[in-house]
Amino acid sequence: IETKLPKVGTTIFTVMSQLAAEHGAVNLGQGFPDFSVPGRLVDELDRAMRDGHNQYAPMTGVPALRNAIAAKTQRVYGHRPDTDTEVTVTSGATEAIFNAIHAVVRAGDEVIVLDPAYDCYEPAIDLAGARAVHVPLDPATFAPDWQRVKDAITPRTRMLMINSPHNPSGAMLSAADMDIVAGLLRDTGIFLLSDEVYEHIVFDGARHESALRHPELRERAFVISSFGKTYHCTGWKIGYCIAPPALSAEFRKVHQYNVFCTFAPAQHAFAAMLDAEPGHYEQLGAFYEAKRDRFREQLLGTKFRPLPVPGGYFQLADYSAVSDLDDFEFCRWLTIEKGVTAIPLSPFYESPPPGQRLVRLCFAKNEATLDAAIERLQKL
Amino acid sequence: IETKLPKVGTTIFTVMSQLAAEHGAVNLGQGFPDFSVPGRLVDELDRAMRDGHNQYAPMTGVPALRNAIAAKTQRVYGHRPDTDTEVTVTSGATEAIFNAIHAVVRAGDEVIVLDPAYDCYEPAIDLAGARAVHVPLDPATFAPDWQRVKDAITPRTRMLMINSPHNPSGAMLSAADMDIVAGLLRDTGIFLLSDEVYEHIVFDGARHESALRHPELRERAFVISSFGKTYHCTGWKIGYCIAPPALSAEFRKVHQYNVFCTFAPAQHAFAAMLDAEPGHYEQLGAFYEAKRDRFREQLLGTKFRPLPVPGGYFQLADYSAVSDLDDFEFCRWLTIEKGVTAIPLSPFYESPPPGQRLVRLCFAKNEATLDAAIERLQKL
Ligand SMILES: CSCCC(=O)C(=O)O
Ligand SMILES: CSCCC(=O)C(=O)O
Repeated sequence: IETKLPKVGTTIFTVMSQLAAEHGAVNLGQGFPDFSVPGRLVDELDRAMRDGHNQYAPMTGVPALRNAIAAKTQRVYGHRPDTDTEVTVTSGATEAIFNAIHAVVRAGDEVIVLDPAYDCYEPAIDLAGARAVHVPLDPATFAPDWQRVKDAITPRTRMLMINSPHNPSGAMLSAADMDIVAGLLRDTGIFLLSDEVYEHIVFDGARHESALRHPELRERAFVISSFGKTYHCTGWKIGYCIAPPALSAEFRKVHQYNVFCTFAPAQHAFAAMLDAEPGHYEQLGAFYEAKRDRFREQLLGTKFRPLPVPGGYFQLADYSAVSDLDDFEFCRWLTIEKGVTAIPLSPFYESPPPGQRLVRLCFAKNEATLDAAIERLQKL
Repeated sequence: IETKLPKVGTTIFTVMSQLAAEHGAVNLGQGFPDFSVPGRLVDELDRAMRDGHNQYAPMTGVPALRNAIAAKTQRVYGHRPDTDTEVTVTSGATEAIFNAIHAVVRAGDEVIVLDPAYDCYEPAIDLAGARAVHVPLDPATFAPDWQRVKDAITPRTRMLMINSPHNPSGAMLSAADMDIVAGLLRDTGIFLLSDEVYEHIVFDGARHESALRHPELRERAFVISSFGKTYHCTGWKIGYCIAPPALSAEFRKVHQYNVFCTFAPAQHAFAAMLDAEPGHYEQLGAFYEAKRDRFREQLLGTKFRPLPVPGGYFQLADYSAVSDLDDFEFCRWLTIEKGVTAIPLSPFYESPPPGQRLVRLCFAKNEATLDAAIERLQKL
């Protein structure tokens, strides 16, 4: 049968994880921690099941969780979204991104995506019958060139997608960037989708500039986050979207008939956890900063050249001194021959910068895992 | 902002559950059990979390669960789908229905829906840019009039949606029905979506005629089911789709970028449960048949006239002897004034049969709950 998504194959993350498993490689590819979720979260989830919270959650999410999200947002970003009309719990950030796009992007519209970009954006845009317009980030710093973004805006532009801290590079948008975005979108009908799943993983004393901090931006934004990265449970798939009431209303129409609600006991567990242990996410930056620093130091002892990592849990590394294979071939070779799995950068691009020799390594791993990888990389 | 889904409001199930909560009514509206999930399932989920199954599941689902689903399908329907290429685990049947539609239904296509129909079908069709073509079931028996279905087929018809046991009526399709469907679809490019979430809740010695039993139908079918109804955990939202490899490939493209995967620990729990306790679903029909019989008997002592219930966990009842309010007004009145919540039938229709006086009552409840409802209904 003719496919509706001719560009879609198996996601690179699955491809590389499978290859890693086949060859017994140390898997620093797909982004997930290899350490445990907080014990309290497991206990709370267990309690929620035994307390009988096993039937449909409200479509918008368990009220205690939406409240806890609103309170956390207030604590961290100084703005409290309305629990009833502005917060919606989803099956992970991926569902939230899909819903936000389907809520407002119409057939024939254009959506501006900054490359490199996470791979779920474009297929969702395609399925909505719209077109992704790719604007490259600076190939060295991964900073947006806002003039190029401005030039990409047409009367058909319906949405701009941003992502900070950025996957794959870790680059972060500044307060000045957010002001520029506000200026670009002012007096247009363009919505903002701000993917902030790494919001609590920021380093070197920097501040995450959530779109929720910005009074003008948050009026037109779908701000999307998730608990997977923050609580070391990427497989739990509980995310959320914060958007003004009119946007949330459209978002919820899609969510209601896409998945309706998500795993109820985990919603109760996160509600308890967010309220009881704000320290968990407050210390997450420091937790990952130590891993970043140690891993960077180790990489400097190899032929890989690590790039700066302002946030997130991925380390980009230039491998030009190791090989002149293209990044996809290099990652296959590294997995099969050298026992370390990384993610090539080209799948994050519509047109990868020619000659770019970068791979992405996930450092959300125990020291033993990172040490094992480094030992193998040192031999190159 | 202009809505993409002008017909969508808050789903009737949420509306009625909220009204029930506000007025302290006995809630026989939204379909969910008020008894516990099997203890073993909770224990298995707990174990899966503590064993560290908290990161992304494979996009298609945990292999042990896909295997267990394939084995169960073989045991129950005599056909074993291929674990790798034909079984995909989703965030409930709702996501599976959404994905199947988005996988193959294109802008401008038509999808035939048999009314009354569950309310998530049409919005998903609308979002795909297609059109739902509504063919009414017989208003007395809820049997399809296949000639009318045949007459509704046009060159644009892309999919036929069926649902047996049927929500809201409990009506079941026979083997002869399935043969007729096969005949209708033969030599066309029309896909079948078979919503079988009540597959194990069938009564009076009847056999559920899964599309998977039918060699011709299963070649063009997305067969969708879920664990929510079978294991008394509607809030866990783990469902699945079985479809031939070419259809599953398209289905997975949507699933991959819609939610990617669903709550991993529950997938492990269901894998263990399905293999270890086939008795659970084998006895589910008898378990609910006792509830159906008792509730029907009780209703016969009221002014409501219960319709036959071949399967599922809903009892339709005619209230003409009680009131001549329309069904929506009647359900509001019954909740607010009489303390019992039912679901009106008209939201299941594009054009409700004029003068129909039917409500849907969920009997997936403890005896005490049903007794409390009956006590109130007897006073009418
Ligand atoms: C859904 S698998 C991809 C996980 C992830 O966020 C990444 O590796 O970038
Ligand atoms: C998703 S709420 C609706 C539950 C249900 O299946 C029904 O009541 O018909």
